Amino acid sequence: MAENNFVKEITNIDKNFAQWYTDIVRKAELADYTDTKGCIAIRPYGYAIWENIQNYTDKLFKKENIKNAYFPVLIPESLLQKEKDHVEGFAPEVAWVTEAGGDRLEERLCIRPTSETIITTMYSKWLSSWRDLPFEYNQWCNVLRWEKETRPFLRSREFLWQEGHAIYETEKEAKEKTLKMLDIYVDVAENLLAIPVVRGIKTQTEKFAGAEETYTIEAMMYDGKALQSGTSHYLGQNFTKAFDVKFQNREGKQENAYQISWGMSTRLIGALIMAHGDDRGLKLPPKVAPVQVVIVPIALHKEGVKEKAEELYGKLKDKIRVEIDLRDHVSPGYKFNDWEMRGVPLRIEIGPRDIENEVCVLVRRDTSEKITINLNEIESKVNELLDNIHKDMYETCKRRMESKTTIAHNMEEFQNNMNKEQGFIKAMWCGNSECEAKIKELTAAKSRCIPFIQEQVDDVCVCCGKKADKMVIWGRQY
Amino acid sequence: MAENNFVKEITNIDKNFAQWYTDIVRKAELADYTDTKGCIAIRPYGYAIWENIQNYTDKLFKKENIKNAYFPVLIPESLLQKEKDHVEGFAPEVAWVTEAGGDRLEERLCIRPTSETIITTMYSKWLSSWRDLPFEYNQWCNVLRWEKETRPFLRSREFLWQEGHAIYETEKEAKEKTLKMLDIYVDVAENLLAIPVVRGIKTQTEKFAGAEETYTIEAMMYDGKALQSGTSHYLGQNFTKAFDVKFQNREGKQENAYQISWGMSTRLIGALIMAHGDDRGLKLPPKVAPVQVVIVPIALHKEGVKEKAEELYGKLKDKIRVEIDLRDHVSPGYKFNDWEMRGVPLRIEIGPRDIENEVCVLVRRDTSEKITINLNEIESKVNELLDNIHKDMYETCKRRMESKTTIAHNMEEFQNNMNKEQGFIKAMWCGNSECEAKIKELTAAKSRCIPFIQEQVDDVCVCCGKKADKMVIWGRQY
Repeated sequence: MAENNFVKEITNIDKNFAQWYTDIVRKAELADYTDTKGCIAIRPYGYAIWENIQNYTDKLFKKENIKNAYFPVLIPESLLQKEKDHVEGFAPEVAWVTEAGGDRLEERLCIRPTSETIITTMYSKWLSSWRDLPFEYNQWCNVLRWEKETRPFLRSREFLWQEGHAIYETEKEAKEKTLKMLDIYVDVAENLLAIPVVRGIKTQTEKFAGAEETYTIEAMMYDGKALQSGTSHYLGQNFTKAFDVKFQNREGKQENAYQISWGMSTRLIGALIMAHGDDRGLKLPPKVAPVQVVIVPIALHKEGVKEKAEELYGKLKDKIRVEIDLRDHVSPGYKFNDWEMRGVPLRIEIGPRDIENEVCVLVRRDTSEKITINLNEIESKVNELLDNIHKDMYETCKRRMESKTTIAHNMEEFQNNMNKEQGFIKAMWCGNSECEAKIKELTAAKSRCIPFIQEQVDDVCVCCGKKADKMVIWGRQY
Repeated sequence: MAENNFVKEITNIDKNFAQWYTDIVRKAELADYTDTKGCIAIRPYGYAIWENIQNYTDKLFKKENIKNAYFPVLIPESLLQKEKDHVEGFAPEVAWVTEAGGDRLEERLCIRPTSETIITTMYSKWLSSWRDLPFEYNQWCNVLRWEKETRPFLRSREFLWQEGHAIYETEKEAKEKTLKMLDIYVDVAENLLAIPVVRGIKTQTEKFAGAEETYTIEAMMYDGKALQSGTSHYLGQNFTKAFDVKFQNREGKQENAYQISWGMSTRLIGALIMAHGDDRGLKLPPKVAPVQVVIVPIALHKEGVKEKAEELYGKLKDKIRVEIDLRDHVSPGYKFNDWEMRGVPLRIEIGPRDIENEVCVLVRRDTSEKITINLNEIESKVNELLDNIHKDMYETCKRRMESKTTIAHNMEEFQNNMNKEQGFIKAMWCGNSECEAKIKELTAAKSRCIPFIQEQVDDVCVCCGKKADKMVIWGRQY
């Protein structure tokens, strides 16, 4: 009974995807709304996912010799103003501190929406010679953007992220590193989160405020909408000129450094929910799951069951993230549903008859498949299954992305495809931002990116019919 | 030449300790001032120390089953107001957001100075039965307190810290955990930072705003002043009543939970500098040092030197945090001073003659001792020396703390001792806050704590002469 109620509280995924999402966030105790409007509390289960993302990504950064640092959360208004495109992009959505320590401040301080301005200012103080370069710093921190409409993880006024900021001696090195950072994001998305992504460059309209070029990885969610999952920007000398970041180059002349920045946030938790979840709740890929395996003893009160379950737990606990559910006031059925809802990739059931036969039952969260195995092969089987679950979850997402990606040769096709089923549309584009704006107006789909892997799906622009050599992926977005 | 200038730029430690401190912070590239007044940028070398503190402490928390989470940085004014003592203590030093997203806010939001109010509010939503308890959450985050006078790490308007917040079913459990958290801080201070501490309870005057009891660890710096290095608070039901955090207890009745909180911050980096440093610069204990060993080749241009140095590096790099200094535009002497200034615990020198003799020279940062060893014993010797350096640095601090701790039986003695040499003074206290205030007025020394280990150094209060049974440690402070 409890178990039925339980699942019923989650809205049907195909009936109302937005409500389903909110249900998962709250029922699986990933996050909750707070008294600070538009800001969430990330609960331990949600935060543990973020910690796994952090650990994985931070190791990749450190391997590239990127160093963590920390810069002030408050940025004086005068600094924010210095780069024209940047301030235009961010000023409308910042929060201002105007009073502190009992006094009205002479200059307003904004809470960082991103830290290019304050970090570039410090770089200007620290840099003198080409020998000092590169500076390649990253910070894990909170940022604030005053969004009008908010949704947990996807669009929260405050969110957690990492922002990397680096300056180089040459344009070439800076551009190479911009792409290297994008590669790291691909690694995180595909190898940790089991989410396939399209990589490409943003159009001029969609690039970061203050960048020369913005590179992106784009993932497709269950409903066919896109989620921008990580971006890497080549900033050129835009900020280093505005902030006077100069060095003496090898020829003894003063030169402005070449800059990049890259960021990825707790939005990825939203991506995990929406890329993998189903009607029974969250479905977490094993490498990022806070609990990879849960042991649920059957007939816990019967002699020897608890002991055997604990013995299994003891065998696994130093190798994987495993929990044992010894609650005595809820039924095994309740526990099954509970852990499925929380997305735990693998469940081990063990009861009196299993013990007699020296077996246990493994149940996959992703396929519901039940596998009976001998107790002595538990470690190897669990590892093998966790690997398979990752691969299969990735493949499932990939097949969905492929099946929901169509080609359009003209606007009628574009609109028909999008109305039939939300997804990605491949279409040629002439490079004119007016066509881009018109497509958005007619279909609510934006250019996701100009993918690195190009296909010549036509030779004219899907919108204006003029000659076009860029294939763009379009889609509605979160 | 370069080397001499180099050290000269650090102020003499005994001549001007405050200036010496600032020199170290900047020269060793731990942190720098920013355009946001009173806020610092923590540079990679300083941040790496903080990461080592975080990793060590976080493991101890996780062992106690404390879970990381994250709560909003902005707290509505109405929440801050709810606990009377708390708001009185913190409201004067908060920063207020009054405008955001282009609009004036209806209610001011403060940037968290600490998060009891917002976290307790969430606990009230999540708690229903004794079965849910305990909630034991921690967050690693930034906080802001609008100090009038600031100093890097010691008193910065924004600082990084961890704040733990837990609620329990019983007073007994809550009080036990308050002390358990203090034990963790002792572990961090002594076993990681090599700083001996006095542990005890704060007087009512010095306790946290809103707490029933505050426990503290107090360390002594080079100049004899105290640095409060971590505090753990028993909050009783003060906040759980103000925020209506109730649960159904085992008897089926509604009861307010019993609460604790505990915090430790980037101040500890200040403690490291001031407890261990000397005229040559920073002196880092090996376990927390970002670079534990540096290899400096002598006569780098001579055949085989670079290769041998790299071979040593290869042997050590997976076991300890080691750097190799291959710069070809500065002399070995410059490098020695540079790495000494940065506090690296152990230096390895290797030159052509050493290679001939199959030896290298190890130089301890703490004692300057030079030890010639065979190349084949490098790994074991390095480990042994790093262990010894930790122990010896701890003992050095301990001896200083002991030698600068005196006993006072009356105010004349108290003032004489403090005027002669700053340090800790043990003196009896009657428990009256007026005596405490008078002592502070006369000597600028505050009560550090009533230590757990009591000595009956007298039987009357050092101030009023009335009967007294509490021995208090007094000292001037950072």
